[in-house]
Amino acid sequence: MLETYPQPISLDRVQLASTIDIIDDCAEACTACADACLSEPDVAELTKCIRTNLDCADVCATTTRVLSRHTGYDATISRAMLVACVTACAACAAECGLHAEMHEHCGICADACRTTEQACRDLIAAMDS
Amino acid sequence: MLETYPQPISLDRVQLASTIDIIDDCAEACTACADACLSEPDVAELTKCIRTNLDCADVCATTTRVLSRHTGYDATISRAMLVACVTACAACAAECGLHAEMHEHCGICADACRTTEQACRDLIAAMDS
Amino acid sequence: MLETYPQPISLDRVQLASTIDIIDDCAEACTACADACLSEPDVAELTKCIRTNLDCADVCATTTRVLSRHTGYDATISRAMLVACVTACAACAAECGLHAEMHEHCGICADACRTTEQACRDLIAAMDS
Amino acid sequence: MLETYPQPISLDRVQLASTIDIIDDCAEACTACADACLSEPDVAELTKCIRTNLDCADVCATTTRVLSRHTGYDATISRAMLVACVTACAACAAECGLHAEMHEHCGICADACRTTEQACRDLIAAMDS
Repeated sequence: MLETYPQPISLDRVQLASTIDIIDDCAEACTACADACLSEPDVAELTKCIRTNLDCADVCATTTRVLSRHTGYDATISRAMLVACVTACAACAAECGLHAEMHEHCGICADACRTTEQACRDLIAAMDS
Repeated sequence: MLETYPQPISLDRVQLASTIDIIDDCAEACTACADACLSEPDVAELTKCIRTNLDCADVCATTTRVLSRHTGYDATISRAMLVACVTACAACAAECGLHAEMHEHCGICADACRTTEQACRDLIAAMDS
Repeated sequence: MLETYPQPISLDRVQLASTIDIIDDCAEACTACADACLSEPDVAELTKCIRTNLDCADVCATTTRVLSRHTGYDATISRAMLVACVTACAACAAECGLHAEMHEHCGICADACRTTEQACRDLIAAMDS
Repeated sequence: MLETYPQPISLDRVQLASTIDIIDDCAEACTACADACLSEPDVAELTKCIRTNLDCADVCATTTRVLSRHTGYDATISRAMLVACVTACAACAAECGLHAEMHEHCGICADACRTTEQACRDLIAAMDS
């Protein structure tokens, strides 16, 4: 889809498309992990995990939307959302990581968050270079 | 991710996971198509297309979230959102289809919307059977 | 804001603006109620309530966005989202209503959902008349 | 609603509730301004304004959700989203400000963005104090 955008784009289209896909998968993983946690018998131990998942899903969803827009590009907004996404993913990876041995969905979600955190850091680096 | 959900799910997990992915890709295509339309020289001819893309992106995003939750499942909400998603995708496919010859992004987006409309209809049929 | 829209609008602007505000407040109430439920000692009894709150918040958010757009108006999308909003609010009002005596946030949220359900029904009636 | 949250909250509830309402109104103003711009005869001059409005609406929507959650509070996520919201609102106020004389909706939206930028800065200051 990115290849059909009719104007120049300041970032590398391949890296951008890959980053958007990674963040998108992370949003989906966080929404699913929050719901899976809600259905665990030990839900009372998972309330911080659920909350962080919900935040991370929302932050990722907004980040992919901002990154999918190129018209009237303003690097400051993209950059600030990428920083917020790094922050949310780092927090969510840490929290889900605590429950990864007990709950497979937390392990998968923690991995998705770590991958997304790195992809966002890489895109910030590309923007700054 | 769906395989790790700790309780029974009323719908077929393979069909559900595939439908969520299809709707998710459609949301992304609609957001990107709205933005690509904004950058076309004939943007004044594309305002209804942009608006329908924005609606369809929002409807798809909410549909994937509702379908990703299984705790305390309420079929009436899933069904109503699937119907809304069918409606939005049909409208967006029709509108984007009008510009498909002129703009490749509209053609790709129309295809994504048609695929999503059918996947949602299939899931409704599975829910009703 | 609605008064500044530069073209004719098919619906009554006062009713429309009021409905958007009501749905918006409901989205906020549902997000807050989901989080308050997460912090209750009896969270294990509230998992269906949390899930329904999350659905209702997402459905309301998309409904206000669709209703806030008038360019290239397509009544079928607005109508389908209003129906989905009625469905989600009715389900959320019923579920929150079960916990209203125990938790004040559930009572407030149930009221917001009932008000929103009625406002959406009224707008559908106005669209059909 | 905030008064019914069952646990302590790290921030002042009155300031927090007021900030959430301000950001929420801004999200609504940005969605409406993007759509009003789409219906203006000079839409070709307003494409950057529309794009910035869409970004700002999404960033504001995620910020209110993050601020509405208190369970398992993580100041780093709230702070990063507030910074992103300041950035998006400043960009949107500047862009809408360019069209405020020509289009009343842009003037109203620019004001909403400036108010939100300041409210977010004030909340960041309160978090840091």
